[in-house]
Amino acid sequence: MGKLTNLEFLDRQEITNLLFEYCSALDCMDLPRLSALFTTDCEVDYGPDPILQSRGAADLEKSLERMWRWSRTSHHLSNVQIKFCSENEAIGCSYVYAWHERPDGTIATILGQYHDRFIRGLAGWRIAKRCMVMNGCNADFTVNINRLERVTPPVDWVPPDMDAQT
Amino acid sequence: MGKLTNLEFLDRQEITNLLFEYCSALDCMDLPRLSALFTTDCEVDYGPDPILQSRGAADLEKSLERMWRWSRTSHHLSNVQIKFCSENEAIGCSYVYAWHERPDGTIATILGQYHDRFIRGLAGWRIAKRCMVMNGCNADFTVNINRLERVTPPVDWVPPDMDAQT
Amino acid sequence: MGKLTNLEFLDRQEITNLLFEYCSALDCMDLPRLSALFTTDCEVDYGPDPILQSRGAADLEKSLERMWRWSRTSHHLSNVQIKFCSENEAIGCSYVYAWHERPDGTIATILGQYHDRFIRGLAGWRIAKRCMVMNGCNADFTVNINRLERVTPPVDWVPPDMDAQT
Repeated sequence: MGKLTNLEFLDRQEITNLLFEYCSALDCMDLPRLSALFTTDCEVDYGPDPILQSRGAADLEKSLERMWRWSRTSHHLSNVQIKFCSENEAIGCSYVYAWHERPDGTIATILGQYHDRFIRGLAGWRIAKRCMVMNGCNADFTVNINRLERVTPPVDWVPPDMDAQT
Repeated sequence: MGKLTNLEFLDRQEITNLLFEYCSALDCMDLPRLSALFTTDCEVDYGPDPILQSRGAADLEKSLERMWRWSRTSHHLSNVQIKFCSENEAIGCSYVYAWHERPDGTIATILGQYHDRFIRGLAGWRIAKRCMVMNGCNADFTVNINRLERVTPPVDWVPPDMDAQT
Repeated sequence: MGKLTNLEFLDRQEITNLLFEYCSALDCMDLPRLSALFTTDCEVDYGPDPILQSRGAADLEKSLERMWRWSRTSHHLSNVQIKFCSENEAIGCSYVYAWHERPDGTIATILGQYHDRFIRGLAGWRIAKRCMVMNGCNADFTVNINRLERVTPPVDWVPPDMDAQT
């Protein structure tokens, strides 16, 4: 990573703000505000099921109406990492703790990551591509999100003796 | 949002630090350290019940003694958004994952937001106004926090057929 | 805290990135990538049990193989506070929501803090010392992590009458 200029600090902040605006708009179900954060030709992929994939901001806005099936949600974003590919293009990875409540009061939680591509147009930075990956979820969440790949242990790995510690 | 100067980067960082200090002081129950983060005439509103509202830093410090009824807490702050109104005034919104453990070992969690007004005085930035809003909570949390408003679905909205996916 | 220069902004960002890389490498179980974030002579202390303490990056890498006993993990880092002691040395505190899933599907969560010392060497910033402290955990987590100290209530403190509010 080269030395950062003031401009890069500002870009980083604007992109981070996009990520937070996404959460805020989603939790209010303000879908027009949400879709305006994406490029008009964006590609969004939450999982292998076609219902979880969108092409274009208008399609995304329509598709996310499915979130009304939750009575409430809360998307907590952290671990924001951004890397600039050029002056007008960047990639990013962030963690999300996504809490969802059903009308019956039961709760489903995803521990996930957003893998994004950002592009700067005339109106500022937008999300051009988003792929969600799932580190984990509680037992009660059943949507098939893309799974995070993990390095496997060496074949001779032996679990440590941690008593009742697990 | 206009172009940021170095000064604004620094202000942003000092305000963000205030937010983190609040969590840290609260989780240690160091209430004098916590109340020093607020203006002496601050207004703090966690919910509609008067017991959840404070006027002034001294009143807030006294009021938050109620948090000793929890055996432990952990306040994880994210999604920090700050907007400057003038050189010495800013507003902010941040998300909090607030975990509380009772002496009997049961746990209550709030998924919330802090909506703040910050003012810079001679001694630096302070929180002048805080309103907490709740996106959600686990079934076991019963304090009546201000509820986040959400856009409602169109009258003709039909839940998607997501099978067992919910 | 004195006025920040551009250099300090960049250092702050590089250190924050170290913290996020740790989470990302751990959740992928990419232990060589993880240990490269530490100084070769680092001291890492997750708890009083010797199995939770490491001396040196190689030892840490070996020791963290124990994390393969979880089927999946997700480490959400927030509340990042960094203070520079000198041009090449800093201390930091950050909060972690650490989610762990066992092969049987049960989940253990820690609400913790990392207390770190960072040193800048020829290759950039590294973690020289890490002590993990636990604010709390769910009932199902049994590893003995260092416990966060909390101020105790005054001897004459009386719990507030919060009815069914707990």
